[in-house]
Amino acid sequence: MIHTFLEQGHVTSPAGWRAATAACAIKKPGRDDLALLLSDRPCAAAALFTTNTVKAAPVLYDMVLMQRNPGGLRAVVINSGNANACTGSDGDAAALAMVQAVEERLGLEASTCFVMSTGTIGVPMPVAKVTQGIAEAAERLSPAHGPALARAIMTTDTRPKACAVRVELPSGGVCHIGGMAKGAGMIHPNMATMLAVVTTDAALPSDTLDAALRHVADRSFHSISIDGDTSTNDTLLVLANGAAGLPPITDMQSPDGQAFLQGLLAVCQRLAQEIVRDGEGATRFVTITVRGATSDADAHLAAMTVAKSPLVKTALFGADPNWGRVLCAMGYSGATLDPNRVVLHFGGLKVLENGLPLDFDEKAAHNLLNVPEVQIEADLGLGDGAATVWTCDFSYDYVKINAEYRT
Amino acid sequence: MIHTFLEQGHVTSPAGWRAATAACAIKKPGRDDLALLLSDRPCAAAALFTTNTVKAAPVLYDMVLMQRNPGGLRAVVINSGNANACTGSDGDAAALAMVQAVEERLGLEASTCFVMSTGTIGVPMPVAKVTQGIAEAAERLSPAHGPALARAIMTTDTRPKACAVRVELPSGGVCHIGGMAKGAGMIHPNMATMLAVVTTDAALPSDTLDAALRHVADRSFHSISIDGDTSTNDTLLVLANGAAGLPPITDMQSPDGQAFLQGLLAVCQRLAQEIVRDGEGATRFVTITVRGATSDADAHLAAMTVAKSPLVKTALFGADPNWGRVLCAMGYSGATLDPNRVVLHFGGLKVLENGLPLDFDEKAAHNLLNVPEVQIEADLGLGDGAATVWTCDFSYDYVKINAEYRT
Repeated sequence: MIHTFLEQGHVTSPAGWRAATAACAIKKPGRDDLALLLSDRPCAAAALFTTNTVKAAPVLYDMVLMQRNPGGLRAVVINSGNANACTGSDGDAAALAMVQAVEERLGLEASTCFVMSTGTIGVPMPVAKVTQGIAEAAERLSPAHGPALARAIMTTDTRPKACAVRVELPSGGVCHIGGMAKGAGMIHPNMATMLAVVTTDAALPSDTLDAALRHVADRSFHSISIDGDTSTNDTLLVLANGAAGLPPITDMQSPDGQAFLQGLLAVCQRLAQEIVRDGEGATRFVTITVRGATSDADAHLAAMTVAKSPLVKTALFGADPNWGRVLCAMGYSGATLDPNRVVLHFGGLKVLENGLPLDFDEKAAHNLLNVPEVQIEADLGLGDGAATVWTCDFSYDYVKINAEYRT
Repeated sequence: MIHTFLEQGHVTSPAGWRAATAACAIKKPGRDDLALLLSDRPCAAAALFTTNTVKAAPVLYDMVLMQRNPGGLRAVVINSGNANACTGSDGDAAALAMVQAVEERLGLEASTCFVMSTGTIGVPMPVAKVTQGIAEAAERLSPAHGPALARAIMTTDTRPKACAVRVELPSGGVCHIGGMAKGAGMIHPNMATMLAVVTTDAALPSDTLDAALRHVADRSFHSISIDGDTSTNDTLLVLANGAAGLPPITDMQSPDGQAFLQGLLAVCQRLAQEIVRDGEGATRFVTITVRGATSDADAHLAAMTVAKSPLVKTALFGADPNWGRVLCAMGYSGATLDPNRVVLHFGGLKVLENGLPLDFDEKAAHNLLNVPEVQIEADLGLGDGAATVWTCDFSYDYVKINAEYRT
């Protein structure tokens, strides 16, 4: 393994990064709800945004920013407690005010700050509180505040999500990749938001970084499902500042490129899996692998359809070895499928072969599923396509949390 | 209104239809689990089948049958308790044995009997029991047994679903359309199945009937969602035997054609809505109307995406006026949408205008939603496209019923 996870790694584990938080009482007082991240030099950047037509103001701002200055970003500002979504032109002005406050306080050029918001939608942003918080945070930037940053972006997440890896490049140098995320789906009574920020001190041009991010996102954040809803604010950002002082990685197929890609994948998969594990109401972490599909894309489609099926997810809550629901979900996924070739394993136990149920011990299968970490494996018997995705079960608490009358 | 609902109408309300049931102990003894329906003359037929790649044996049989003899059907045989799905070549033989038993007992020509199964999947069909039941049922066919037929096809439905309309054709004659259905989704611990059979004594060629069925299905059975899963057995069949003695309807645009179409729509919508109302665990019946879309198809897409969203459905269980989740679901539906034009009503109360939340009374909105029948209306403000769909909420009982370890 060329990459190794650091103990308690975070977004300031790579060189050249500082962070700070502030308590702005955006939704309620008494907790840090503003996060500021600064690179000591301009960064190459790549980002993926929600595909929802309804996009929050900061997403709309950032989409333009990434067209304008993808190679020169310096800072990221994030608030929790308010999603700045469905807030009209005042919301656009609020997002702009946040980036301008950062750029002014830190003496940065225009169009060098990225902005993210998460929290309640349809509520005006308290701009004065937030810009005051930015002013405070700007005074205490430090590499030591990475862990606090991951806490400040939480909404109803029960724990912060952060990690970092050390990557030994085959050409000799060492770089670091750090990341933090907040959870999606099943979490916020108003609106779920997935936010993730990944930092590195490796050097890559923006287009190379963009290709790497898309490759990795398909195998991490795009391979998890909590409840299938896509929010107005989902954003994944990666920033590369080159502070490790290594030659730029311009070819992802090169040995250095592959090492970096594996490190980036490790960070993004860890964060994505942490989001699933922290899905409120979730009692099981479920890994679904589909092999033998006609393509990787087909395998992904089949696996994600199983991961999203309410009937599969409630069966998993009950530890019911209900192969019929899994087969059925793959059947309506749109993936190429010959039911007579499908082999299905629950927790390592073969329950279906050539599309026919085996005479397995139902109680034993129930026991194999009645654990915190569950494996479902399907082989479609058609080709070499494969994909792995992660999901959780649908529990009573899922309904309770999401049915609660908002307060 | 050219059509009127009969009191306690059913599939034998139209002329020329007889029915019978039998108790075969397919899954357990003590209840009718076999249903036989016979027309006194050959019928034109049209059918729609599950789009799931994994199709039950009777579905595969019927798909061939409908190619072979769509204008000459005489009978339908249906069993509950066993879906005859994932049963391999034995299952194919069982489906064939059922239709052959019917054709032989009733002295019908080959390829004149349609077959449906619903119940547990992956369990061999007890063919001898079923053919014995067919022999018994064939001896007691009567127009009086329509209501018993709707009960015999139930699995975990809590009540039978049947209705019929009398249609006064503008050209002078009177015909009848009857129907029965069993529920889909959220209902069966193993596998949900939607089955529906519609009978009429009107005369229509099969191709006209097929066009009518597709038009009507889009506005009824394709406009309901329980949990978004599509089963291996879903089948909708319509049979026209012409026993009313009226001239054939060959043009759906003619006055007679339009009257028939409205009657067929009324029957199918009633049955589809009954399925939603009987969704186990459902505490609310929810009507979602989207207007102002760029097309009817777009309106349908937006409405169905709202109807399927677990976050919307859990909010409805809690009577939470959570406009954000509705807007968000329309946003990721794929329908053309300008968030700044959307107007949203909950139970008649306007909660969102031009994409911005109004300062409505949350408690009043909660009270408007805390009722058994809920209306959600969205106007996209873009065009003339409109669609109405029906769904239910996600409750604790939904999780309970579907998480139960199978017994």
